[in-house]
Amino acid sequence: MKKLTDLQALISEAIDKLTFPEQPAELYEPIGYILALGGKRLRPALLLMACDLFGGDVENAIEPAMAIEVFHNFTLMHDDIMDKAPLRRGRVTVHEKWNANVAILSGDAMMVESNKLMMQVDDAILRRVMDVFNETATGVCEGQQIDMSFEQRDDVNIDEYLNMIRLKTAVLLGGTLKIGAIIGGALLTDAQLLYDFGVNLGIAFQLQDDILDVYGDPDKFGKQVGGDIISNKKTYLLIKALEQAKDAQAIELNSWLTLQQFDARDKVTAVTDIYNQLHIRQSAEDAMQTYADKAFGALDNINLPEERRQYLRQFADSLLVREY
Amino acid sequence: MKKLTDLQALISEAIDKLTFPEQPAELYEPIGYILALGGKRLRPALLLMACDLFGGDVENAIEPAMAIEVFHNFTLMHDDIMDKAPLRRGRVTVHEKWNANVAILSGDAMMVESNKLMMQVDDAILRRVMDVFNETATGVCEGQQIDMSFEQRDDVNIDEYLNMIRLKTAVLLGGTLKIGAIIGGALLTDAQLLYDFGVNLGIAFQLQDDILDVYGDPDKFGKQVGGDIISNKKTYLLIKALEQAKDAQAIELNSWLTLQQFDARDKVTAVTDIYNQLHIRQSAEDAMQTYADKAFGALDNINLPEERRQYLRQFADSLLVREY
Repeated sequence: MKKLTDLQALISEAIDKLTFPEQPAELYEPIGYILALGGKRLRPALLLMACDLFGGDVENAIEPAMAIEVFHNFTLMHDDIMDKAPLRRGRVTVHEKWNANVAILSGDAMMVESNKLMMQVDDAILRRVMDVFNETATGVCEGQQIDMSFEQRDDVNIDEYLNMIRLKTAVLLGGTLKIGAIIGGALLTDAQLLYDFGVNLGIAFQLQDDILDVYGDPDKFGKQVGGDIISNKKTYLLIKALEQAKDAQAIELNSWLTLQQFDARDKVTAVTDIYNQLHIRQSAEDAMQTYADKAFGALDNINLPEERRQYLRQFADSLLVREY
Repeated sequence: MKKLTDLQALISEAIDKLTFPEQPAELYEPIGYILALGGKRLRPALLLMACDLFGGDVENAIEPAMAIEVFHNFTLMHDDIMDKAPLRRGRVTVHEKWNANVAILSGDAMMVESNKLMMQVDDAILRRVMDVFNETATGVCEGQQIDMSFEQRDDVNIDEYLNMIRLKTAVLLGGTLKIGAIIGGALLTDAQLLYDFGVNLGIAFQLQDDILDVYGDPDKFGKQVGGDIISNKKTYLLIKALEQAKDAQAIELNSWLTLQQFDARDKVTAVTDIYNQLHIRQSAEDAMQTYADKAFGALDNINLPEERRQYLRQFADSLLVREY
């Protein structure tokens, strides 16, 4: 088995070499710009890993892996317009550096480019690969729409939230692994089990992210602690707290949610205090563990040598044990 | 050969029956909305026609034909955001009826849906069809970007203009016909000749549209005569006039282009007068004829029974002889 870090280096190098036409500049320059912002290249590396896992040649998976990275960055480019985000990975977003029209159209062109890259597989698996890719793309669009609609609603429940994060982030992880497995020559059943592993791991990972926002070590987490609380983001923690808070707690929580002027630290402290009273952290960790267990359960059933399953377990552990 | 009007009816019926998931509503309702605005369904009908032309079963081409219509409407949904267009086919545009975010994301989902529909062809031709579709999509994105960039420029020349209309509108016509031909079992050379026919016909058709805007019979043209003149749209006529106008003519033309307050009829009359002095209509008609000739030249070389080529000639004539 190749090391994940080596696969990340391999795909980073391939992405650096990816070129687009020079003209029209305003269509293609933003594509190069967003791809050059970097990131961990985890998704494409996982596609290569899944291929390698089943004994496939990772060279055959480089272009599909780039397709996943180009697709992911297309969704980021459009999401940033919708969220009016000024920054992406510490750099100015495309719609701010150019304008929204450029970001819409460059994103569209990226989606076409990702389709072209994903087509670079053997004829024998072309339809299977493209079917998974298209279903994944539909899921991501649905997840983004549901997430946007949550901002207008105050009655989101836990099941709706879990469905949203499944679609918005987890199916891409699952689809990426499934495509890599297909390229690597996996049987349909094993490719599907790897998909289930990826989707459940993705949900667990997102729940962990919700927990870390409140309870993470600010030095290790890399984001502002309490950012979700400050912005009233509907996370697992907030939705659960809204469900469980009663009487004075409910009144206090809702007053923090409606307050327009507040001291950020006061709000984070007060809302965290309510979470603590309601044991929300434990509840979120239980949910996270439930999905991690589902992921490991799917993994146990994949027809692979035990040391390869162990490799996947270690990868999952490394994702889920970010220090608090 | 089936009649084009019958094929239009066939595809209209299929599009009416096309359903999307109910949820998330804000993702899928706009897709149903824009598709229900109607239109002539000319592009998908031409895909069926191209299939029929080579003896293929049009039933096998219904889903790819719908893919072309869904793709075309996706580009309209995004173009309307970029152009801030309030109306589309006399109805409120998606970004006005919902909002820009909804139009961005529904458009993205439509593109995925168009890919899924286009995949519904035999394995033996899947890659060829998808390659043509992806190249077409890239061309349309490039054309839209070039068109947007023209608004910021005052040095656009005729070659750039012809390249823009080729990409923005003509390659979709060519790609549509080529895909239909492939599904119908055409040889690669014949499919490519039909592509060339479509692209050149598309350019000729767009040039005719430029001419009709100024010289068309308002009762028959269906748009406001002089609309392009009023909005300073860079058409073949305006670019040619800017190239050829000298001295007082050039000064007068440029003064109309820079004037912020004006009587629309006065501007249309004055600019048309300059066009007439410079014989711009003849020049545009010559260019249109050049592309029509290229289209008919490609057509003559297609390996089809003469009566089928004649059918295509009559179709081209019907497109190009809209009454003035």
